[in-house]
Amino acid sequence: MRVGVLTGGGDCPGLNAVIRAIVRKGVQDYDYGFIGFRDGWRGPLEGDTVPLDIPAVRGILPRGGTILGSSRTNPLKVEDGIRRVKENLAAFDVDALIVIGGEDTLGVAATLSDEHGIPCVGVPKTIDNDLSATDYTFGFDTAVNIATEAIDRLHTTAESHMRVLVVEVMGRHAGWIALHSGLAGGANVILIPEQRFDVEQVCGWVESRFKIRYAPIVVVAEGAMPKDGDMVLKDGTLDSFGHVRLSGVGEWLAKEIEKRTGKEARTTVLGHVQRGGTPSAFDRWLATRFGLHAIDAVRDGDFGKMVALRGTDIVRVPIAEATARIKTVDPKLYTEAGVFFG
Amino acid sequence: MRVGVLTGGGDCPGLNAVIRAIVRKGVQDYDYGFIGFRDGWRGPLEGDTVPLDIPAVRGILPRGGTILGSSRTNPLKVEDGIRRVKENLAAFDVDALIVIGGEDTLGVAATLSDEHGIPCVGVPKTIDNDLSATDYTFGFDTAVNIATEAIDRLHTTAESHMRVLVVEVMGRHAGWIALHSGLAGGANVILIPEQRFDVEQVCGWVESRFKIRYAPIVVVAEGAMPKDGDMVLKDGTLDSFGHVRLSGVGEWLAKEIEKRTGKEARTTVLGHVQRGGTPSAFDRWLATRFGLHAIDAVRDGDFGKMVALRGTDIVRVPIAEATARIKTVDPKLYTEAGVFFG
Amino acid sequence: MRVGVLTGGGDCPGLNAVIRAIVRKGVQDYDYGFIGFRDGWRGPLEGDTVPLDIPAVRGILPRGGTILGSSRTNPLKVEDGIRRVKENLAAFDVDALIVIGGEDTLGVAATLSDEHGIPCVGVPKTIDNDLSATDYTFGFDTAVNIATEAIDRLHTTAESHMRVLVVEVMGRHAGWIALHSGLAGGANVILIPEQRFDVEQVCGWVESRFKIRYAPIVVVAEGAMPKDGDMVLKDGTLDSFGHVRLSGVGEWLAKEIEKRTGKEARTTVLGHVQRGGTPSAFDRWLATRFGLHAIDAVRDGDFGKMVALRGTDIVRVPIAEATARIKTVDPKLYTEAGVFFG
Amino acid sequence: MRVGVLTGGGDCPGLNAVIRAIVRKGVQDYDYGFIGFRDGWRGPLEGDTVPLDIPAVRGILPRGGTILGSSRTNPLKVEDGIRRVKENLAAFDVDALIVIGGEDTLGVAATLSDEHGIPCVGVPKTIDNDLSATDYTFGFDTAVNIATEAIDRLHTTAESHMRVLVVEVMGRHAGWIALHSGLAGGANVILIPEQRFDVEQVCGWVESRFKIRYAPIVVVAEGAMPKDGDMVLKDGTLDSFGHVRLSGVGEWLAKEIEKRTGKEARTTVLGHVQRGGTPSAFDRWLATRFGLHAIDAVRDGDFGKMVALRGTDIVRVPIAEATARIKTVDPKLYTEAGVFFG
Repeated sequence: MRVGVLTGGGDCPGLNAVIRAIVRKGVQDYDYGFIGFRDGWRGPLEGDTVPLDIPAVRGILPRGGTILGSSRTNPLKVEDGIRRVKENLAAFDVDALIVIGGEDTLGVAATLSDEHGIPCVGVPKTIDNDLSATDYTFGFDTAVNIATEAIDRLHTTAESHMRVLVVEVMGRHAGWIALHSGLAGGANVILIPEQRFDVEQVCGWVESRFKIRYAPIVVVAEGAMPKDGDMVLKDGTLDSFGHVRLSGVGEWLAKEIEKRTGKEARTTVLGHVQRGGTPSAFDRWLATRFGLHAIDAVRDGDFGKMVALRGTDIVRVPIAEATARIKTVDPKLYTEAGVFFG
Repeated sequence: MRVGVLTGGGDCPGLNAVIRAIVRKGVQDYDYGFIGFRDGWRGPLEGDTVPLDIPAVRGILPRGGTILGSSRTNPLKVEDGIRRVKENLAAFDVDALIVIGGEDTLGVAATLSDEHGIPCVGVPKTIDNDLSATDYTFGFDTAVNIATEAIDRLHTTAESHMRVLVVEVMGRHAGWIALHSGLAGGANVILIPEQRFDVEQVCGWVESRFKIRYAPIVVVAEGAMPKDGDMVLKDGTLDSFGHVRLSGVGEWLAKEIEKRTGKEARTTVLGHVQRGGTPSAFDRWLATRFGLHAIDAVRDGDFGKMVALRGTDIVRVPIAEATARIKTVDPKLYTEAGVFFG
Repeated sequence: MRVGVLTGGGDCPGLNAVIRAIVRKGVQDYDYGFIGFRDGWRGPLEGDTVPLDIPAVRGILPRGGTILGSSRTNPLKVEDGIRRVKENLAAFDVDALIVIGGEDTLGVAATLSDEHGIPCVGVPKTIDNDLSATDYTFGFDTAVNIATEAIDRLHTTAESHMRVLVVEVMGRHAGWIALHSGLAGGANVILIPEQRFDVEQVCGWVESRFKIRYAPIVVVAEGAMPKDGDMVLKDGTLDSFGHVRLSGVGEWLAKEIEKRTGKEARTTVLGHVQRGGTPSAFDRWLATRFGLHAIDAVRDGDFGKMVALRGTDIVRVPIAEATARIKTVDPKLYTEAGVFFG
Repeated sequence: MRVGVLTGGGDCPGLNAVIRAIVRKGVQDYDYGFIGFRDGWRGPLEGDTVPLDIPAVRGILPRGGTILGSSRTNPLKVEDGIRRVKENLAAFDVDALIVIGGEDTLGVAATLSDEHGIPCVGVPKTIDNDLSATDYTFGFDTAVNIATEAIDRLHTTAESHMRVLVVEVMGRHAGWIALHSGLAGGANVILIPEQRFDVEQVCGWVESRFKIRYAPIVVVAEGAMPKDGDMVLKDGTLDSFGHVRLSGVGEWLAKEIEKRTGKEARTTVLGHVQRGGTPSAFDRWLATRFGLHAIDAVRDGDFGKMVALRGTDIVRVPIAEATARIKTVDPKLYTEAGVFFG
């Protein structure tokens, strides 16, 4: 048995831990051979491979990133892509593929597995925690820890100068990082993409904080939008740069707060530091367990499935089910957090 | 409505986050009054209280320890204890008690609530994660992160000197911290109280690691025991000091490994650093949610219950059920980890 | 003897450690009384004070920010400012002032002490490490540690996607944070305000890094400028926002690199996280020693002086000397670092 | 020119940063060749080498330990040791040796260089900061940061249970780590090897802390001794194990405090975690600069010298001078810290 492994999409702490667990268990318990495909689906598409054995995975557990590289290449959008993938898998004698990725990367795996007979097992990966069918994905806990530490640090700056500090965190479509780091960091306002926010209400929370001589911290997901969406466009911030990340909602909101409340406001955009570096203990543990269970799914010939966390158990679910829609923040959870606003 | 709050047993990162959430929601949403009892059950027993309102809980979210103090006082073992608790609760006009603690502290709450009509709601607390009926307890993730960071650091020392490093972590009756930090830290041997270990087998794993020019890390829970338990006693380490913590199984095991393999071995006993200091983001989030749901249980008059984590939901379970037996490591999980031994 | 204390300018980890050391030694060894002035020079200007005794400084050693608050108020620029400061000091029976601040705040202290007979002792404070007459200022080591950790994290993201990552760090006029964190983080390019950079040369370094299949990290101080300074202005980034911090040289440089090399480039602007939160051990030690020596200077009646670090000794220098010019990066040090470029 | 490099003695964060800087500058600026000797002086003694070039030093900057391995082998104590070292250096065409180590390792370098014509340049390395002739050595700042973080964590445990916590840190002959981490961590008692302590006085400080309802932290260097030294021996702790590290002065002191004050006391022995893992930013910077200057000394033919930090400058001093006596804590510094005791 020869198993191919690839990692696709944005990088995420824990990818290497998954790869290591797959290889350790596959070689030691099942005597499988492995081959790494470089840069996500580009690897099988172009036949770009890298050797993958136990020495190759030594020492990678605590390292961020992925030793296999990553890309957003999608063979379904490339002419003759499916045929080329099939040919390369055959050329390298690959009997099964383990695909570690997010919605897009796994979506390809679902199609190839379900419709084209390419035996794939999926491992869910997203910093944003927005994949359905799993309680958590690895990388998320690391990102939340980093964001929380940053919020901790910003509190003292806010207090010393009695300023508003707006912290923009990751989350284009789901507010999980904002919600968790905002709660953990003691933010006074948390804004998520799932619910358009009212700038006046935000300013009210900000002012009520100042009234008790404390300085407010506003945590905003990069994908959060004000109720009157045009505001953002009129200001021109979003479209002149096209970078939500650097001149996005955080910067815009800080200016609005300054204008409306007369208080100084500053923005910090955490950006890529949230997704790099060594994984938290939880993410290493989850990624390792995902890897061990993924290779078991291969052994069982249980293709088209993705490993997932349910409570403290690792289960298997159809990849297609997991990628059908993103998992957004339950309105009840957001309401629950509201007791800390203002 | 006037609600008493107490924290009992060993301290644990996240206690203050629970207290803050209870008070914030209780005051803001339900207009309750609060009173803090000092040092666990000693507070209601002796009528020792501290004011508890919103200003009292400001800024405590990121702080370890407990602003209410803690103790292991058990009113069931004190003459007239139950009557004195009842009288003091009446004297302070307390309508309900929220009890944050582990097996012992919650056991008292179960008895007082179920048999003596004292309305208690429980919040589970244990570094060791060994309480039944909840997926996780706060404090555990922090402890695992600290232990994992220590293991990360010890790897480089082990490699530089080609020595065995034995790391003794918390866990008298359950090996959760050892299992999670051992997996996350890339340990080569993990020993837990649930399964007696064979020193010869441990030495075999150690030697196989040296054969490939790597140095082994052995993670051992403080409560782990060798198969021939007499060994420990014969060596005299345990009984001359009576401190498992400082001259316990880690120290004993390092000497055995040195003696049997001829390799240098060193021990590090992590001790109290695992339970102090600022909580991890996960623990702040979990503790906060436990607090919010505990005050909801009080509002609902749902006494004799404990809040618990199931997947990503907070549920309520009978306190008595949660404290009936400790939650030990599932043998399947330990076997799963075995692929990384040696 | 009654001593006033104030903290001015941007906040900086270690301010509270200075205050604590001053009060502990002043009260215990010299039996002095203390009074805190709020928000830098605004305090003595407006007579806004806060009690300052041993209980007030308990537990503040590890906390970022300043319990006294801060501002950039300058009594020399306020009508009748000097007279008002004098009157308020007299009204509060203040015999001496300890002024903790950077160039501006200390500059006021020098003038008031040297020309107006107000007895001041200075303590140097700047994240940027750009004060003359002292080897280091507290806050700098913390900032460098935070920036270095961020660079560590960004390496893995850069490698996984083979992208350029531009990290913008603090330093408007001096490149100390960029130089130290760039060296410590293994950056491939470091750009500082002291030497205008050549974008073509930067692109050359970037490309030479990709040639060996590694991804480059570019660390740029917020005050760094390209050789042809007009470029920045022409692009409009700086003046349309007027925020060097958020849409400044880092963002501009990433776009230039993308345009000229065809490689993807991303920017991270670390911003305020560099100046908040708990101080590093070095900064706590330095701040504590500065505080102890500042109160000794008061006892000695050695006014108009500032405490300073020379090697491992704390010495006293005229405040005026320390604030005469900023301490920029020695060209030799920058050349020394150049061996790691590319 | 062909340069040999070796690392000797206990491992220390920053060793790899030195090696990387030496090789980067030596290859790029001077076109030198390099060879690594394995395990300190054992390498040249037995001719055990490892290739050392730019690819070999990639990515090692942030890693603790040493890629060259280490040992305490001393060729001066081995029959024919000097001759064998000479022959091996000749056999491998080595023109100069860079020796990175502490007192013992550098002492050999001084003898070989001054008396036997083997051209050596030294780089000082000691966690304990006890080498003369340099303000600091790399590794020390990392150790102090780790110890300070541990003390931060222990404060909350001490407060929650109103217990004494004794923290034993490294330092057999010099109390630098205890002094710096004790000051930075807000310890209430600091005990160093340079001054025998009076247990009664320690108990007095402990009790005065409890009087104001705070719990005391006692930081003790592993080499600290009570005034009546026999106490330790009588208790049998030291000699039954011969391990100061694990059953040493910390454990002994906690028991004495319990016995004399009646307060619960616990010990934490930080041990090897202080010397492993990624170096702090300061240590990476210092180690890098030491490496750059060491290769310059080789280029200048300035043998028998060691690089050293003086203020912010790197200078050269005779190795023999640096190793003549250890640098202990200046009594004035210890007295200065005394204001925080009790």
